[in-house]
Amino acid sequence: MRHPQPTMPMRCLFISRHLVKLYLFLQNTNGSFSYQGPVPHIGKFRPKSVASNNMAQFISPDVKMELVHRQLAMEARADPIVYPDLPQQVEHFNQLVPLEQINQHHATQSVFKAVSIRDGVTYCIRRLHGFRISSPKQLQPLETWKKLVNVNVVQLREVIANCKAFGDSSVILVYDYHPLADSLKTRHFGRMLGSGFIDGITGAKMSSQLSGHASNQMQQGAGVVEWLLWSYVIQLSSALRAVHANGLASRCVDLSKILVHGKSKILLSCGGVADLLAPDTQVQQLQMEDLHALGRVLLALATGNAFSARRDLVQQSMTYVTNHYSSDMKNLISFLLSSSPTGRKSINEIMPMIGARFYSQLETAQMRNDMLENELSKELENGRLFRILSKINTIVERPEHNLDPTWSETGDRFLIKLFRDYVFHQVTESGKPWMDMAHIVQCLNKLDAGVSEKVQLVSRDGNNLIVVSYGDLRR
Amino acid sequence: MRHPQPTMPMRCLFISRHLVKLYLFLQNTNGSFSYQGPVPHIGKFRPKSVASNNMAQFISPDVKMELVHRQLAMEARADPIVYPDLPQQVEHFNQLVPLEQINQHHATQSVFKAVSIRDGVTYCIRRLHGFRISSPKQLQPLETWKKLVNVNVVQLREVIANCKAFGDSSVILVYDYHPLADSLKTRHFGRMLGSGFIDGITGAKMSSQLSGHASNQMQQGAGVVEWLLWSYVIQLSSALRAVHANGLASRCVDLSKILVHGKSKILLSCGGVADLLAPDTQVQQLQMEDLHALGRVLLALATGNAFSARRDLVQQSMTYVTNHYSSDMKNLISFLLSSSPTGRKSINEIMPMIGARFYSQLETAQMRNDMLENELSKELENGRLFRILSKINTIVERPEHNLDPTWSETGDRFLIKLFRDYVFHQVTESGKPWMDMAHIVQCLNKLDAGVSEKVQLVSRDGNNLIVVSYGDLRR
Repeated sequence: MRHPQPTMPMRCLFISRHLVKLYLFLQNTNGSFSYQGPVPHIGKFRPKSVASNNMAQFISPDVKMELVHRQLAMEARADPIVYPDLPQQVEHFNQLVPLEQINQHHATQSVFKAVSIRDGVTYCIRRLHGFRISSPKQLQPLETWKKLVNVNVVQLREVIANCKAFGDSSVILVYDYHPLADSLKTRHFGRMLGSGFIDGITGAKMSSQLSGHASNQMQQGAGVVEWLLWSYVIQLSSALRAVHANGLASRCVDLSKILVHGKSKILLSCGGVADLLAPDTQVQQLQMEDLHALGRVLLALATGNAFSARRDLVQQSMTYVTNHYSSDMKNLISFLLSSSPTGRKSINEIMPMIGARFYSQLETAQMRNDMLENELSKELENGRLFRILSKINTIVERPEHNLDPTWSETGDRFLIKLFRDYVFHQVTESGKPWMDMAHIVQCLNKLDAGVSEKVQLVSRDGNNLIVVSYGDLRR
Repeated sequence: MRHPQPTMPMRCLFISRHLVKLYLFLQNTNGSFSYQGPVPHIGKFRPKSVASNNMAQFISPDVKMELVHRQLAMEARADPIVYPDLPQQVEHFNQLVPLEQINQHHATQSVFKAVSIRDGVTYCIRRLHGFRISSPKQLQPLETWKKLVNVNVVQLREVIANCKAFGDSSVILVYDYHPLADSLKTRHFGRMLGSGFIDGITGAKMSSQLSGHASNQMQQGAGVVEWLLWSYVIQLSSALRAVHANGLASRCVDLSKILVHGKSKILLSCGGVADLLAPDTQVQQLQMEDLHALGRVLLALATGNAFSARRDLVQQSMTYVTNHYSSDMKNLISFLLSSSPTGRKSINEIMPMIGARFYSQLETAQMRNDMLENELSKELENGRLFRILSKINTIVERPEHNLDPTWSETGDRFLIKLFRDYVFHQVTESGKPWMDMAHIVQCLNKLDAGVSEKVQLVSRDGNNLIVVSYGDLRR
């Protein structure tokens, strides 16, 4: 009904066997539901090349690949031959997979993906090698980190002190796992600095597949394009605002510790690590250092040179920013790198420099929301159809239960079998088998809705003909 | 494997017939994929009551109902008995459904949902009754409206002048259709002013099902809660910025013309209508009036009284705002309602008053993004499984093609039939039929991936036993 022109010729093939009914309007739609195509503001934004028939029923390939890759990353397991030293279990976590190169000499930290046996959820666990907790007071700042909830900060979930699973006494910090998140370093300096971590088993790169796109986001010759840099500024300032407002300092504002998830979502990682390794009560001073570090990160991203904030290069780098970016960006970086005369700066002071760019960021987020809602609308009935089909398959063709009236094909379930034939065993006029997804989807939808439309079922020998409504079939 | 405790007892029932294999790790995951559960930052935010087993595979009911209702609204048809005067076709649009009460006396405008026969997409069309276009110059501002793209402005797509379909000469404005969008008036003043439009056929309310939630968003006794009001401020200012930057004025900043879609997405509607009905070249003056109108809308929402900006009530209303909202909100409304000494104000001037609230708005948007991505991850494999199952069903049990070796059950396709039995016709130890969705999902996933795992298929008479890998079955 949705595309009368394309489907009519196919449906006409069966006119000799089945009735074709044209409805001027749906009299009763209770429960019946099928995806009606995108709303215009979504449809119009989509590239035309993917607007084929299949796309209307199933998810668009770009979004799908992104989500599938994330799921695969969560599913990955470590090969015990490649990693013989990996413990089977660390406290209540198992299925450890290293997320960075391990077995480096003198490593003081290592990071793993692990599954909690308590809730079955995948977490990221960071081990501080041979770090002994002597007083519970050491763990105090971590309690504040655990309570800090911000969408741009990797959530700390749990701290395990004096863990013996690795053969020493380690501290284990349990964070949320964000599959396929890259560090800013890998994403934007990957080609210069070696590109991420290779999976020991499959040889697949465990870091994001998106790094190929990084080159699109680089300006000719050098740094990150301005709109993306502002998006990073907004998200990093959001994270630092939350951290500083909780009386903490990140102390990890660094290209290698800031993660990018998906296309441009920023996540500040390693919360609490510095508080444990180097306790310091001068929080205000540390917060100032966070701002300075943010300035260094932005300068590196803008110039495409990780060392651009070095004392001997900073002047040259600022000239580059002045020539290639807006004056707002230049002023922002100058402000962050400067030492304030009063000795005090606040992350809130950069808000006026961001200004109207908040609106662009919000608009981007809202557009992605609309797109995801549309994709979800397409997919949500597939789950339902899959369940119906599974039920039908469980019922039909079970000759071993012929004697049991509730299961045999001689009772009501015979109807279901005939319906199955009707749905799937369509033939063309010349008797050739024919598969028509539109017919399958439509019939199953009507069955699920139990609409009052009648369907004419023919038994295999052609001798019996039963007319039954979808509503009756459903019972 | 994901939930070893709950599924093991069920799987053990089949141990007499099938081999149970325990894999310490997946050797090869190419193509094989099944939803691994939410990432922790999603899982933890979800209410615990819905975290049952079924929820892990299928979409969460809240999101589903919202999307299903939108699809149903797009699908709705008008009953020709209730609406005998409705034209069958208006230019290239058909399937008209009135979105507001029609047949009112002296109505000068009416709004319909309609499907374009050009692209099959549903649009919202607004008819200006008996309005004749005499000069193409009248349509000039509408061209600018068509080019204006903003996520908080309802997109104008097309203008049809001198349309005769309604028996007079009307102008038809074609906009994007946002299913189940409410006006601010309906959403927040619905109980006082009569609640929306009743569907002529089903008696179902065509306006959003969410209006029940409106009461949660009302402060005790009166207006909208402050965070929601700020969200409206940010989105409305985003819309007005875009409109004003294009040299236009909305002239429709009114409780009845501002739409709310879903929970809190704002859409400014009726773009261009005023430009057509009352052309005016004093755009700057009209933009000032937009700001004043925004002030009136906010005051009405804050006080819960649609007439709170009336000259005799405005003082009292401002006192109410001062007592119940932050001083930023009071200052914002004062600024919008005041007449500037220089005679000029800009929508950009309200940005500093919004301040850090941009961050909250962004965080909300990002959290919804994460949630939608997670829902999509759950659903996306159901579409794939549904397609595989449809293919299997199309192949098996077609005795009429026994003589054709490419179709008959005696050839390779016999294996598929046995596999179907294996997947769906599981029995308990005592021979009773047993349906296990986990088994079905797992088997189909392995088939799709063509993994090298061997499966033992038994023919119906029990005489033949075939051991075959999923990879071979797939061919």
